[in-house]
Amino acid sequence: MGRPTEVRLEAEVKEWHGEADVLVIGLGAAGACAAIEAANAGADVLVLERAGAGGGTSAMSTGQIYLGGGTAIQTACGFEDSPDSMFDYLMAACGPDPDENKIRTFCDQCVEHFDWLVDQGVPFKESFYGEGSYTPTDDCLSYSGSERAHPFPGVASPAPRGHTVQQEGIEAGVQLMSSLLEAVERTPTRIETDVRCETLVLNDARRVIGAVATYEGKERAYRARRGVILCAGGFIRNREMVRKHAPWLSQCRWAMGTDGDDGRGIRMGLGAGGETIRMHTGCIVLPFTVPKGLVRGLMVNRLGQRFINEDAYQTVVGEAALVHHGGEVYLIVDDHIYERPFPPTEFAAVGETIEELERELGMPTGSLQNTVELYNRGAQDGNDTVFHKSPENVVPLCKPPFGALDYRVEHSLWSVFTMGGLHTDVDGQVLSADGKAVLGLYAAGRTTSGIAAQGYSSGLSIADGTFFGRAAGRAAARHDRMAPL
Amino acid sequence: MGRPTEVRLEAEVKEWHGEADVLVIGLGAAGACAAIEAANAGADVLVLERAGAGGGTSAMSTGQIYLGGGTAIQTACGFEDSPDSMFDYLMAACGPDPDENKIRTFCDQCVEHFDWLVDQGVPFKESFYGEGSYTPTDDCLSYSGSERAHPFPGVASPAPRGHTVQQEGIEAGVQLMSSLLEAVERTPTRIETDVRCETLVLNDARRVIGAVATYEGKERAYRARRGVILCAGGFIRNREMVRKHAPWLSQCRWAMGTDGDDGRGIRMGLGAGGETIRMHTGCIVLPFTVPKGLVRGLMVNRLGQRFINEDAYQTVVGEAALVHHGGEVYLIVDDHIYERPFPPTEFAAVGETIEELERELGMPTGSLQNTVELYNRGAQDGNDTVFHKSPENVVPLCKPPFGALDYRVEHSLWSVFTMGGLHTDVDGQVLSADGKAVLGLYAAGRTTSGIAAQGYSSGLSIADGTFFGRAAGRAAARHDRMAPL
Repeated sequence: MGRPTEVRLEAEVKEWHGEADVLVIGLGAAGACAAIEAANAGADVLVLERAGAGGGTSAMSTGQIYLGGGTAIQTACGFEDSPDSMFDYLMAACGPDPDENKIRTFCDQCVEHFDWLVDQGVPFKESFYGEGSYTPTDDCLSYSGSERAHPFPGVASPAPRGHTVQQEGIEAGVQLMSSLLEAVERTPTRIETDVRCETLVLNDARRVIGAVATYEGKERAYRARRGVILCAGGFIRNREMVRKHAPWLSQCRWAMGTDGDDGRGIRMGLGAGGETIRMHTGCIVLPFTVPKGLVRGLMVNRLGQRFINEDAYQTVVGEAALVHHGGEVYLIVDDHIYERPFPPTEFAAVGETIEELERELGMPTGSLQNTVELYNRGAQDGNDTVFHKSPENVVPLCKPPFGALDYRVEHSLWSVFTMGGLHTDVDGQVLSADGKAVLGLYAAGRTTSGIAAQGYSSGLSIADGTFFGRAAGRAAARHDRMAPL
Repeated sequence: MGRPTEVRLEAEVKEWHGEADVLVIGLGAAGACAAIEAANAGADVLVLERAGAGGGTSAMSTGQIYLGGGTAIQTACGFEDSPDSMFDYLMAACGPDPDENKIRTFCDQCVEHFDWLVDQGVPFKESFYGEGSYTPTDDCLSYSGSERAHPFPGVASPAPRGHTVQQEGIEAGVQLMSSLLEAVERTPTRIETDVRCETLVLNDARRVIGAVATYEGKERAYRARRGVILCAGGFIRNREMVRKHAPWLSQCRWAMGTDGDDGRGIRMGLGAGGETIRMHTGCIVLPFTVPKGLVRGLMVNRLGQRFINEDAYQTVVGEAALVHHGGEVYLIVDDHIYERPFPPTEFAAVGETIEELERELGMPTGSLQNTVELYNRGAQDGNDTVFHKSPENVVPLCKPPFGALDYRVEHSLWSVFTMGGLHTDVDGQVLSADGKAVLGLYAAGRTTSGIAAQGYSSGLSIADGTFFGRAAGRAAARHDRMAPL
């Protein structure tokens, strides 16, 4: 066995091949924002990207950003929002025990952050899309969380906060990254592609002073005069890490990430003295809400039990279904509410009665029948007496035939990415297990644990990646954060 | 902000106050076994204990050790067991994705490990206790997991594997540690108490070469010529760490640990380049199984739903109840099966009918009634058609009055300790995030993630602590594991 490869000491670096004030590792949304802000603060910035071009997983995303507190788009579309409402929702939805400092800072500065994105050239249309979270049109605003679902209206005034970048003939995620990369190019930032960073370099005072990478099979060392910012993605594409930290996530068919989401950034940070938190968590998408009328169905586990209000956000339903019910779930529908789902989803069973459906599904006799009977009893008056689904989504299921749409994790197109990572503060500073700064080291995006400890709302990942990426860029560029080299 | 304190470099150590081949940090069961084996392998061993005497959390335990594969006690009591049966059970019960290598090695060598404990002077009586996991008598063997509960009899032949140390007028945990400490004293091992280790020392090759501690308020450095073994407990007594990594555990009233379970060992290992895994997990004891007839009741969540076979082991019920049902659970009983529970537990509600009980509990109308009705339907024939509780534990609940025993986590004496920690291999070698050895560093006990990833059976903690503590002692003492200093 050799020694750990996650870190090098300065004495082990024979030659520096490049140098900058601030070294940004990874050029997705977080890295781009970090670079822009560091450059704007006067730092000489070098970005190292392992792929042939910038974009990262952000470019593959839906281009939706969770923003609020009263953005120009929210106001233009007639929705009221405030930093406090947004704070209250996120604190309640993103727990248990989400990072209050991060959420407070993000909510308080969110309008400014939206404006900054616009200033960078990221396009948003002043329009609201009411059919769901994902906007297949070029519309901007949508409800992308559980804001209107029980119990959140009792916690905070609902407002739509999903801000999808305006598509101009390309996917919104691609548009987002195209705009951000153009903004980077307007700064003096240098970019080197096909450079795969592998390890950080520490000096004798254990300050991070650079990184070692491979380029065309050869090792290259890059010196950072002020700081290194890890924006290298999560670890959903690293089978071994997923197995070690969050094995349940590996059941989902669609790992949302690029090859770069191999956890290297997280492991580099660990090697330099950082701590990881929430490594067991993921954003788990159970895609059963298109068309939106399907939330009138009943999501049940393998024993025919409901476990959540079906109009909770699809990631929240997905987390409950996978983490608490083994991913063995079905959506019970009748002939009245059934519409062809997108993505296409098969029936696990159909029956002329719930009893027959229950039998076909192999559920205990009476189990599903009891569930539907209890639901229908309240639904006659528009009430979900057990899980408090919103009245507009509540109708009795009584028109045969009945069906069970097969949303079991192995049969359905669940998608997932990792949410755990390096522990950082509101400046993007990487923290040790004792809560001390790992000097010279910053991180943002899914290399870190962000706003959502659990309980994901769509757009939060690009939101905290861009927001805390900017913070990291500013902090790394600041002289007063430096210890003497 | 200062720099991380979790690690020191050799150049920062001005004076070494002590020295040994092998430095063992912490003198609970893991540390004692590590010291004995290292000493028996010819190493000069020094144990540093932060308390005034050895014992640690092991001395506070029930003194139960999960052992099997055909131990002398199992055989004497007429139970058949094999390493393969034990392996099959543990692989199924301790997941998802428990460490197969650790479980295989432990099961294959478990009979030898039992014999070794006996050789060290740990007393076991050749007797079986059938009334529960915890043995209030001086008996030894009991079922301390879910071996006889669904689905495990279909996975592996059940055998009782809880081996409680024979009490001789003192608590079994105290007896265990008393015996092990006497065994340590029969070796040339040196012990220093009231020495609180704070950080590890690395040389330029990042090999662990010692530790820095405080003694009477002064800093002392100890050099380890061959290796350091961290046996410093878990982190249940560190509020901040619990909040960061496993906030749900903080709801349990009884944190099973000493002041030493502050996570210092884990943080020292992280600082030296080790990785943590499963930091979100805990052993969660929901104490509802004494007297054992209470498992004939129905454990339901706040919505009146059952979620598990009540005869699953109390830690498994506890994990499901806390992690998946928010700790809001009640045990529904009728006048026929009710017996006064130990520890004493209040009724949250009583009623002449289930309907009344349901109403008193504020559960949705029909929810608990449906649950009891469905259960009673099968129970008439001795069948739990939903969760497959064993027939001997299944009777209809139909004799009024009915009651809901209040096992909500804030009202009941749940106990808990942390299960996550440093990632180690079967030699107790601490591993980095890349799976490489952190040279010179070993760990065992609750400073590490052990046999149970989740799904605890009682006695596993002392089992893996003693077993892998021994392995770490042998490995640290071996010259061939050394890199040149």
